[in-house]
Order: sequence, then structure tokens, then C-alpha cells
Amino acid sequence: MTENIAANASHRIPPASKLVTLVGDYGTADFKLHRGGVLQEVVVAYESWGSLSDNHDNVILVFGGLSPSAHAASSPEDPSRGWWEFMIGPGKPIDTDRFYVVCVNSFGSCFGSTNPSSINPETGKAYGLDFPDVSIEDIAKSAHHALQDLGIDHLHAVVGGSMGGMSSLAYALMYPDEVDHLISISAAARALPFTIAVRSLQREIIRCDPGFKNGQYDADEEPTHGMMLARKLGLMSYRASEEWHQRFNRARISPDRKSDERFGIEFEVESYLDYNAKKFVRTFDANSYLYLSRAMDLFDVAEHGGSVNAGLAKIQAKSSLIIGVETDILFPVQQQEELAEGIQRAGRKAEYIQLNSINGHDSFLVDEAHFGPVVRNFFDQT
Amino acid sequence: MTENIAANASHRIPPASKLVTLVGDYGTADFKLHRGGVLQEVVVAYESWGSLSDNHDNVILVFGGLSPSAHAASSPEDPSRGWWEFMIGPGKPIDTDRFYVVCVNSFGSCFGSTNPSSINPETGKAYGLDFPDVSIEDIAKSAHHALQDLGIDHLHAVVGGSMGGMSSLAYALMYPDEVDHLISISAAARALPFTIAVRSLQREIIRCDPGFKNGQYDADEEPTHGMMLARKLGLMSYRASEEWHQRFNRARISPDRKSDERFGIEFEVESYLDYNAKKFVRTFDANSYLYLSRAMDLFDVAEHGGSVNAGLAKIQAKSSLIIGVETDILFPVQQQEELAEGIQRAGRKAEYIQLNSINGHDSFLVDEAHFGPVVRNFFDQT
Repeated sequence: MTENIAANASHRIPPASKLVTLVGDYGTADFKLHRGGVLQEVVVAYESWGSLSDNHDNVILVFGGLSPSAHAASSPEDPSRGWWEFMIGPGKPIDTDRFYVVCVNSFGSCFGSTNPSSINPETGKAYGLDFPDVSIEDIAKSAHHALQDLGIDHLHAVVGGSMGGMSSLAYALMYPDEVDHLISISAAARALPFTIAVRSLQREIIRCDPGFKNGQYDADEEPTHGMMLARKLGLMSYRASEEWHQRFNRARISPDRKSDERFGIEFEVESYLDYNAKKFVRTFDANSYLYLSRAMDLFDVAEHGGSVNAGLAKIQAKSSLIIGVETDILFPVQQQEELAEGIQRAGRKAEYIQLNSINGHDSFLVDEAHFGPVVRNFFDQT
Repeated sequence: MTENIAANASHRIPPASKLVTLVGDYGTADFKLHRGGVLQEVVVAYESWGSLSDNHDNVILVFGGLSPSAHAASSPEDPSRGWWEFMIGPGKPIDTDRFYVVCVNSFGSCFGSTNPSSINPETGKAYGLDFPDVSIEDIAKSAHHALQDLGIDHLHAVVGGSMGGMSSLAYALMYPDEVDHLISISAAARALPFTIAVRSLQREIIRCDPGFKNGQYDADEEPTHGMMLARKLGLMSYRASEEWHQRFNRARISPDRKSDERFGIEFEVESYLDYNAKKFVRTFDANSYLYLSRAMDLFDVAEHGGSVNAGLAKIQAKSSLIIGVETDILFPVQQQEELAEGIQRAGRKAEYIQLNSINGHDSFLVDEAHFGPVVRNFFDQT
């Protein structure tokens, strides 16, 4: 184990993120990936909050969705707002006065962990599309091994939303003896075809951008058009129609903000999408996006035992909390019920809570009023 | 009035479509468009079925959605299947033994009616993006004037789904004395911001295709990548998640159909989208798509009187039928209720029927079992 920012330096690593370098896997020389790829070295970026108890029994592992870094909350080293700022901190629902909270940047993501823009030691250049397939199981395993290197071999809880919920499910069923509690938010045992279609189109949009150059774009010449369009589609699938109805309805942008461009922006909702997509493009790497997006399509709990229920039966957490949102069109509520029922069917305690947040799939990131009390209450009982 | 295929010849005009050329508007020299544009000549392509009664009182006008031609049903001149084949014909719900049915190709569409690829008489070249703004009201007005030229000044009914439903609403409120009955299917008084966002992204995807060339692409070098991607997004919004769940679930394509391309097609749902998008690209013009798509965003019944209800109060049809589909995410059921309630509030008879079709917004095009009896029953009572 080494901690060395310089070894995998990137402009994208948040200032408080630390790096763990895993050399090999379970004492072997290679880190074997779930779908057959092999890497000699895997780096995992993470941030942490709170204090590790003497017997290391107060750890909560947090997995992010597809796009965030390990910077889930602010800290003295990085006072900027984290992506789950309302959830993690002293006295907050995931209470850092009580827990030692670790958030990892997912394997394959561009915020410090090994990813397609990492250097391939065999060529001395970035992997690009030569990077092996990324799976949700690899995200779970790399986080697991990184925690082991940090001296943590047991979790009070693993928690995540969206892709992070899938990673949490994978972690809980791959390391059943090491997880006491599980929270899966707006995730699924496996994606529906509509959800696959949305992500497939996002990937195709990026790949069709002439600037993509089959993944060999320069770091300063990314396929920004494709990434912007893909992000807009993402935002449409992450949020909910009714939210925009209430927020924008048919409001027009003011004449001074209009361009002369034919079919340019006319409505406030178009302007909102444009603003947010431009913001995203400056932060996220296109190849990372493709690999993680596909990993979500391919993830299937049924691979762990032959059926979704057989896979879920591997989870041995003392209690699980499954949270779903009525307005989520990507991971709709019936998929949340499937998770809770599958865990219950195996004789384990699992509660399903359905929230009527108006913010769709992204609700867990923005709807403190609904999510804060539910998560707080869960940990009050653990 | 002239009927002359050669005057506006195009490879896209279906074999049975006839053309009406409108020279000027209400006796003036110019055809004035709703948002300020002016054309000297407007061509409307149409097809018809059945026989016009002696006193011309058995006419049903059918408006198509964004993408179809006037070929709504087969005929001796063109025995190929029409886009509403199950609905229109002898003994069918729109019964051509009883009615003289006319379907127009919408103004702005590329199947024979005047559109952005028509020749601008001032330059001798196709208009491209110099074509004036297209509005739903222009579609209604051009159809109205074409019918007048054909000696028809009164409709038994106007009928349409999706954009065709909007055109039908516009027709009924612009020519209230001339419409006895109205059927609007999966349309809206005005689009929701989510729906605008979907269409805006489709337009931007097309405009970002380097082959689009700001609308000046050659007829044989269309922006096919952009059109394909936009069509895939369209299909996602036209159909419903549950339909694909039942139809494809997570079925993979067979290994012999796989390409070596990284992130190529893996799931059957991706293959389905690809097949249908490729089919569409060969038939539809990119500029027409942009103009009609924007027309749907901008349509607002509230422009006709100051509010949606004031606009709907202009409709004087003896009876109206509003049909909505539970799985429609583009024009959801609350928008259908708004239409029926608005017409009722003005003291007119309007019935709202909500169908639990599984095919989403496109249900009216494919779900004969649900739609056939409802439309048949409506006309049985007229």
C-alpha cells in the first residue's frame, strides 16, 4: 500500500482525496476484473470524515453515482461543498461524530481512481478504449481491497444511491460477512430495457462526436458536444417532468439572452439544461462515462446465484433499507420493491421506503427534507 | 387551384398523394403564416378514401403526427399499408363506406406539402433554414384552404393524434363554424417543459451533426447520424418502459450479430432502436423535422384568447372526444383531462376516454384493440 497523489496525478482529483494503490489481488500479482480483464495496479481515491474507533467498528462506506468524485462532504482539507453535503457531517443523518465515513471514487471514474485515462504501463500512454471492461463488481472489490489496506475489515454499513446503490448491493453480496447494514437508494438488481436504452443512446451520442476519435482524444480536446448532449439526456432521465412543470412551465428566456441561431434556446427549461450540461462537460471524462455507463447496463444480481432472488439471498446484513422515489423513471419503484422483497424472502430484515420526492432519480442528491430523516432514523436504530 | 405532381416533385411523395397549390390566402397575393412569414405559394399534399356525398356533408379530415405522409391508408392507387391502416377503410372505425376521408400531409412536412426543402422562388434554391417559422396554425390553415379549393367547406369531423391532435384542435378553434365533431388523441393544449426538453435535444443532436451544414446539406448527403440519434430519442419518448420490459427485458443479441466495435450493440432493445432509427432516416428530411418539432413546442391554445380555457371555448363542435393513454410520457393524461374539461367548461359536449394501452404516446398508431372500438363508437353516435 502506498498513498501518493503524484503517482496518478490528474487535474481532476479533488484536493482532499487520498489514493490507495492496490498491487495485485488477494496476494497475487494481478488485479483480476469481473469480466476477465487484468490490471497490475489499481488505484482507489477516497475521502474520509470522522474518527475510526479503536476496534474499527464504526465505518460507513459510501459509494457515489456515476458522476461524482469521492468528495461527498466538505472537510478542513477541502471546504468546498460535497455532493452529499446535507447527509454526511457532524450531527447529520450519516453522523461523523459517531461514524468514520469513507467515500470512494469508483474504479473507472476519472476523479483519482484507475480509469481509462490512466497510463497503460505497457504502452506508456492512456488506455483509452483498450481499458478492460468495468463492472459494478470491480467497483465493489477495489473499494473492499482499499479498505483492507487501510486496516478496515468490517463495515457498520455500506450506503449508496443510483450506481452507488448497485455498488452497495454488490459489496453486500460479495462480502456478506463484513457488512452489518445496507442502504440502497434508487438502484436496481438489474437495469430495465428503457434504462439501458437511455444510457445506450448517451454513449452513442458521445461516440458519434467527431472529437471522440475512438477514445483517443487529447485531454484538452474532449468530445464536448457529445458530452453535452449526453448530459442533457441524462438530466432528462434523472429529474422528473412534474418538477420542471412547477419550476419552469413554459417560461421563455428574456430577449437579451436569445441568440440569432435558428432553433436556438427559447424556453427556460432549455436554458437550464444547457447551463448544467456545460458545467458537467468541464469536469467529466468521456471514456470514464462510457465505461461506467455500460457497467450499469451489464450489472445483474442474477449473475450471483442464477436469479435475482438467489443473488439477493447472499446478503447477510442484519438490516437493509431500500429507498425508492415515485417520480424515478430510470429505476422505478417496482425495482425497489423487488430488492426489498428479495432480501426479505431470504429471511433477512429489509425495509422498503417509498418517497414522493418530486426530483426523480436524483432526489437523493437534492431532497434533504425527504431523505435526511429516513437515513437518520435508520442509523438511530443500528 | 391546380393538381400537379410535377410542380413540386420529390422522391418522397407517396404515389397516391395529390397536390393542391394555394396561390395566396383569402384572395390576397400572399399566404401569411401565423408567426409572420409570407409565402407566395403553398402546396398541400393529400390522399382521400371513400366518396364525397352530393351535399359534401360526409367529410372527415385526418391530420398526421410529425413523421407520416398523407398515406394514412391503402388505396387502389397505392396498395401499400398506410400509417393508420387499421382505422381507415370500408367498415373500419373511420368508415369509408360512409365518410369521405381526407388526410393531408402537414405544411412543413417533406411528403409533398411545402416545406424547407421546397424551392425558394427568389433564389431558385431550397429554402433550408431561410424557410419561415412553421406553426400548428399554418398546418390547420393550409389544410383548410386546400379543402376549400376541393369544394369542401364543412367537416363532419376533424381527427388527429399527437401533432395531428394539435392540428385538429387548432382547426376546430380557428374554423369553429365548419367542424361538427372533433377527436384529439394524445395531444395537448400546449407542451410541458419535459416534452419541450426532449424535442429541443432532438433538434440539437441534428444540428450538431457536422453533416447538417446549417441546413444546407445536399439531398443525398443528409445528416444521417444526427437524425438516427434523434429518432432513437424519439422512440424512447413515444413508447413506454413497460412495453419494452415485456417485449425485450434484458435479452442479448446473438453473438453472430455482434460487431467488434467497443460499446456496440449488446441488448435486443438497442438493436430494436437501431433498426427503427435507420429505417426512419431514409425517409424523413432533417429540416422538416426541425421546423415541425419546434412548431409543437410553440403551439399554445392560450394564444387564442388569453388562456387555455379561453382558447378551448372557441371550439363549437357538437361533440368532442379526447383520448389519452396512461403510459404516454410526452402528453400525459392530465393534459388530456385539461382539454376535455376546458371544452366542457364552455358548455360543449366533450368526453375524455383514458386507455391503458402499453405502447405509450404511439399507442394510437399500433393499438387497434383499444383505439378501434372507441373511435368506431364515437362515429356510431354522430
